Amino acid sequence: MTAGQPRLEIEYCTRCRWLLRAGWTAQELLTTFTTELGEVALIPGTGGVFDIRIDGETVWSRAERGGFPELATLKQLVRDRIAPGRDLGHTDRR
Amino acid sequence: MTAGQPRLEIEYCTRCRWLLRAGWTAQELLTTFTTELGEVALIPGTGGVFDIRIDGETVWSRAERGGFPELATLKQLVRDRIAPGRDLGHTDRR
Repeated sequence: MTAGQPRLEIEYCTRCRWLLRAGWTAQELLTTFTTELGEVALIPGTGGVFDIRIDGETVWSRAERGGFPELATLKQLVRDRIAPGRDLGHTDRR
Repeated sequence: MTAGQPRLEIEYCTRCRWLLRAGWTAQELLTTFTTELGEVALIPGTGGVFDIRIDGETVWSRAERGGFPELATLKQLVRDRIAPGRDLGHTDRR
């Protein structure tokens, strides 16, 4: 990990079989934020968890939000934290 | 991450476009070692890197080995470090 670059965590419920969702989300974020993320960590959890954190701060929590993030929304939330001036292209203009 | 459980890192070269390979490897390892890994981190790198580490120790380095790990081999290498008594089923008997 490049020193000082943010760490994004995706904690997912293994019993709910959300690994593929978590893996897909990780790859989408790493595709969009290739040079802005230090790492994306996939963390097996339980109890219906699907939480996304940047440097320990919650960006999305399924328990709080009552569902999963729409990917464009999630990219905007991540952008606002790690690259606030960045234009996300069509994600910002739909 | 569950305290004390191992962290596995996959550092991949973004310019070589190895994200999909890294993401696939991460998901395969998390499928096999569901309860034995604390997390799998995907780390963007450069310069042709494809390195796999457990708690900082190198398990596979493309530069040293001259290529990518065959997945069954990689699972055995990971098993030997984090769950030495574990039978990997058909992976061990091919």
